[in-house]
Amino acid sequence: MRTRITESLGIEFPIVQGGMQWVGLAEMASAVSNAGGLGILTGLTQTSPAELVNEIERCRSMTAKPFAVNLTILPTIKPIPYQDYAQAIVDSGVKIVETAGRNPEPFLPLFKSAGIKVIHKCTSIRHALKAEKIGCDMVSVDGFECAGHPGEDDVTNMILLPLAAKRLKIPFLASGGLGDGKGLAAALAMGADGINMGTRFMVTREAPIHEKVKQKMVEATELDTSLIYRTLSNTARVFKNSVAQQVIDIESRPGKTQFEDLQSLVQGAKGRELFDTGDLDKGIWSAGMIVGLIDDIPTCHELISRIVAEAEEIIKRRLIEAVS
Amino acid sequence: MRTRITESLGIEFPIVQGGMQWVGLAEMASAVSNAGGLGILTGLTQTSPAELVNEIERCRSMTAKPFAVNLTILPTIKPIPYQDYAQAIVDSGVKIVETAGRNPEPFLPLFKSAGIKVIHKCTSIRHALKAEKIGCDMVSVDGFECAGHPGEDDVTNMILLPLAAKRLKIPFLASGGLGDGKGLAAALAMGADGINMGTRFMVTREAPIHEKVKQKMVEATELDTSLIYRTLSNTARVFKNSVAQQVIDIESRPGKTQFEDLQSLVQGAKGRELFDTGDLDKGIWSAGMIVGLIDDIPTCHELISRIVAEAEEIIKRRLIEAVS
Repeated sequence: MRTRITESLGIEFPIVQGGMQWVGLAEMASAVSNAGGLGILTGLTQTSPAELVNEIERCRSMTAKPFAVNLTILPTIKPIPYQDYAQAIVDSGVKIVETAGRNPEPFLPLFKSAGIKVIHKCTSIRHALKAEKIGCDMVSVDGFECAGHPGEDDVTNMILLPLAAKRLKIPFLASGGLGDGKGLAAALAMGADGINMGTRFMVTREAPIHEKVKQKMVEATELDTSLIYRTLSNTARVFKNSVAQQVIDIESRPGKTQFEDLQSLVQGAKGRELFDTGDLDKGIWSAGMIVGLIDDIPTCHELISRIVAEAEEIIKRRLIEAVS
Repeated sequence: MRTRITESLGIEFPIVQGGMQWVGLAEMASAVSNAGGLGILTGLTQTSPAELVNEIERCRSMTAKPFAVNLTILPTIKPIPYQDYAQAIVDSGVKIVETAGRNPEPFLPLFKSAGIKVIHKCTSIRHALKAEKIGCDMVSVDGFECAGHPGEDDVTNMILLPLAAKRLKIPFLASGGLGDGKGLAAALAMGADGINMGTRFMVTREAPIHEKVKQKMVEATELDTSLIYRTLSNTARVFKNSVAQQVIDIESRPGKTQFEDLQSLVQGAKGRELFDTGDLDKGIWSAGMIVGLIDDIPTCHELISRIVAEAEEIIKRRLIEAVS
C-alpha cells in the first residue's frame, strides 16, 4: 500500500505500532517492522538512557527495517532526564521518533538537526495544529476510543479524523479504535494516511506480556474498558479489572476525589508485574475499546497481512461495487 | 450508488434522514426524499394519529418518492396511543417505518402484515441482534457520537460498525458522527449499507427550524455538545447551551440527582418554541458531535449530491491509489 506516510517513513504498509509502556520492547517493535509496519520502542520502559541505547541496539539486531522510539513527556513525581533520553535516541541513529504527552517543542531542534522525523500524538485538533505549527512531520490523532490517555474532550475518531483532514497539511495517523481492515479502510477514507494500533498489537504472539493477559483480552467485549482518573483531569482508558473497578468506586464517591485517595491504590498497581506474571488483578493496564473486536492471538506478520488484505478487498470490491 | 439498503428501500443514495422531534415534518422529509435519500416524518411530532395521517398526506403531495415514518417508543408520564399511531401509519400506506426507543416487537405483526419494512434504531450490538431476531428488516446502529440518546455504554462507531458487520446478517445503517462524504465512505468501509444523519439535516435550508438555530450550529465546534441525564440513566447528547449547562451543574452536585431536581427545568425547556422562535436559551435540543464539521446551510439536494460526490471521489481516487 502507498500513502504519504509509507513514503515518508519508508515502510511497506501504513500501520504503526503505538508506544506502550512495558510492551514496547525490541521483540514487539522488531516483529512489527519485520512485518512491514513501523515498530516503536518505548523510551521510558528502559530505566536509563544507557539502557535505551542497548535496547535500540538489540532491536537493530532483530530487524533491518525502520523502527522508531517513543518519548512520552509527562509531569512525574520523580524527575526524568528527558534531554538525556532524547540525546540517546539521536546518538543511536534512530530516524523516527514518536512524541506524546506534553508539547515536544523543546526537543524538536535536537531531533530535526539529526534528520529525525517526529510524529506527535495528539488527542485534539488544537494540539494537532500546534504540532504542525512547531514543525512536527506528522501527527497521530487519538480518538476517545483509544487506550491510555484520550484527553478530556471525548471526541471520537468519526469526528476527529475528518476534522484533521480538513485542517492539517501534514500527514496524520488515525489512532484509537483500529484493529482490522475495516478500520484501516475507514481511516484512509476519512483522510488519514495510516493507522496507529496499540491494543491490537498487545494481543499478538510477539507481544512481551503474559499469555493470560492476552487471553483475557481475547475474551473481552467492547464493554470491558473504562475511563478512570477523570476526577484528576488525567483521564485514562483501561481494562476494567478489579483494580480499575476500585478506582471507579473511589471516583464515584460524593465530593471531590483527592489525589491521595487514589495514590496508595495506584502505587500498589503494578502494571509491569501484571504483564510478567499474568496476575490480572495486580494492577491496571491500558486497553482501547477495540478490545471488543479482538478474537485471536496472531503473529504480527499474520495480523498485518490480514489487515492489509481485508482493506484491499473492501476497497477493490465492496466500495467500488457500491459506486459503479 | 448501490447497497443492500438502496435496493431494499428503493432509493437512489444510501442516505437516510434520522427521526427528529419537531424537525421531521413534511418539508424536511420530502426534501430528503426528493434529493434521492430517504426522508422520515416523526410520528409523535404530530399530536394525534389523525394529524399524522394528514402530515403523511401532505408529505405525499410534496414528493413522489419513498419516505418513512419514525415511531419512537418511550416510557412517558402521559400515555401515548402507540397502537393507534401504528395503525394510522399502516392505513396511510407508508411502506417504511423507523422504530426507536423500546423493543418494537409488539408492533411488528401489524407492520409486517402490511408489507412495511422496519428499521430499528439501536445503540448496542445486543439490541441490534435482538432486532434481527424478532424480524426487523434492518437496523440503524447509533454510536456514542450521535445526537439524542446514545445509551449508557459509550461505544463509538469505530467499534460498533465493524462489530455489527461481524455479527448481523441484516443490512444496517451507520448513525452518529456522519455528515460528509468521508463519513459515508468510512461507514461503507466498516460494513454499513448506508448512513443515517440527523444533526447534519437540521442545518439545511429546508429544515423547519429557526435560522438562528442553524447559524448557531454552523458556528459550533466539536466541543459544543454535551451528555446530560446520565444520572437518570437516560443519557442524551444535546447542544451545550445555557439550559444544558444548568442540567450539567445540577447533575454534577454531590450525591444522587433526583428526577425532581431536573423536572422543573425540563418542563420549562421548550424545544419546539426554541426551534420556532430562535430563542437559543429557551430549551434543550439534541445535537450530535458532527456539529463540529458543519460549516454551511445547503439545500438537501446540494448536501446529498456533495456527500455522494465526495464519497465517490474518495473511493475511486484516494483509496484505489492507496492500494494500487
